Amino acid sequence: MRVRIALAEKGIKYEYKDEDLRNKSPLLLQMNPVHKKIPVLIHNGKPICESLIAVQYIDEIWNDKAPLLPSDAYQRAHARFWADYVDKKLYDYGRKIWTTKGEEQEAAKKEFLDCLKVLEGELGDKLYFGGDNLGFVDVVLIPFYSWFSVYEALGNFSTEAESPKFIAWAKRCLEIESVAKSLPDQHKVHDFVMLMRKKFGLD
Amino acid sequence: MRVRIALAEKGIKYEYKDEDLRNKSPLLLQMNPVHKKIPVLIHNGKPICESLIAVQYIDEIWNDKAPLLPSDAYQRAHARFWADYVDKKLYDYGRKIWTTKGEEQEAAKKEFLDCLKVLEGELGDKLYFGGDNLGFVDVVLIPFYSWFSVYEALGNFSTEAESPKFIAWAKRCLEIESVAKSLPDQHKVHDFVMLMRKKFGLD
Repeated sequence: MRVRIALAEKGIKYEYKDEDLRNKSPLLLQMNPVHKKIPVLIHNGKPICESLIAVQYIDEIWNDKAPLLPSDAYQRAHARFWADYVDKKLYDYGRKIWTTKGEEQEAAKKEFLDCLKVLEGELGDKLYFGGDNLGFVDVVLIPFYSWFSVYEALGNFSTEAESPKFIAWAKRCLEIESVAKSLPDQHKVHDFVMLMRKKFGLD
Repeated sequence: MRVRIALAEKGIKYEYKDEDLRNKSPLLLQMNPVHKKIPVLIHNGKPICESLIAVQYIDEIWNDKAPLLPSDAYQRAHARFWADYVDKKLYDYGRKIWTTKGEEQEAAKKEFLDCLKVLEGELGDKLYFGGDNLGFVDVVLIPFYSWFSVYEALGNFSTEAESPKFIAWAKRCLEIESVAKSLPDQHKVHDFVMLMRKKFGLD
């Protein structure tokens, strides 16, 4: 989703290939032999793996439109810090909410909500993490929003009540076409996760 | 160590402050309130946290000397991929070797040795990961070498026998002054880790 939003922001046309992760394609194994994971951006026949790296690559290659990372080195380091925070913290706690239950789930939920408050602090009064326009941190963070109906249902909380500024930011992002057309429907994600939990005996 | 090597490569003088991580300084808590971790590079009074981000910042700010990241966007993405690999894989398996025992330790050792072989594949016939000169991946990876006598003692293996090209690369790096003066003595690391293992009942 990050890569798709970044490409859409830059106005780049691309071919999208779905992957069945239980039966990985020869192309995926050839293009990402180390991690064998998605996403892989293939540009000029060469692979760029790991979404944070691919988004930076897109920003560097198509640098004439919709800059995602700031031009100032300090601000760039700052944006990278928050993108890294999202990957290290929000991702892990979010994942724990839907892959665990009981006390472990409850602890993950608390950490998750703390993360949202930290992110709200960083957002401050800005429209986006990138300032007046969508930036690197926005592109990295907004895909998680597709999972929020899962987190809320399993964690029995309302993000709107806990972190209204976060939700207002997410809704602003969703008004942008590049974001709206790249995110899956929250209900589809919800149904998929509930099916997986049943399969793994978590419900 | 990464930050120190990068600063030394650029010929930048700096003040080094030690941190007692059991009793963190007000400066650390103020400069890195989110993670409360070292290292923090403070430049013009502003903090840059997370070593990978700080090394990139140093390379971008002092870009007139000893470039660490390649100038080509694809090669830059490639270097970032391998730096990320070191952080995600080698770090975790290395840590498990010295914080676990028995089967868990044995599994970590196998994964660790596999990582070294993958890295040897990426190094190929180059002098350094950066090519003819020390680059981003070299700066990110070489600090782990200080831990090798720990890994070898606990895992009961010889890296020289398993991955001779890796050791040859590490020795080449250690001939560079910026690296030699930034890495701690392997024996000191060894003694410290053995003390910690005893303290945590692992020996």
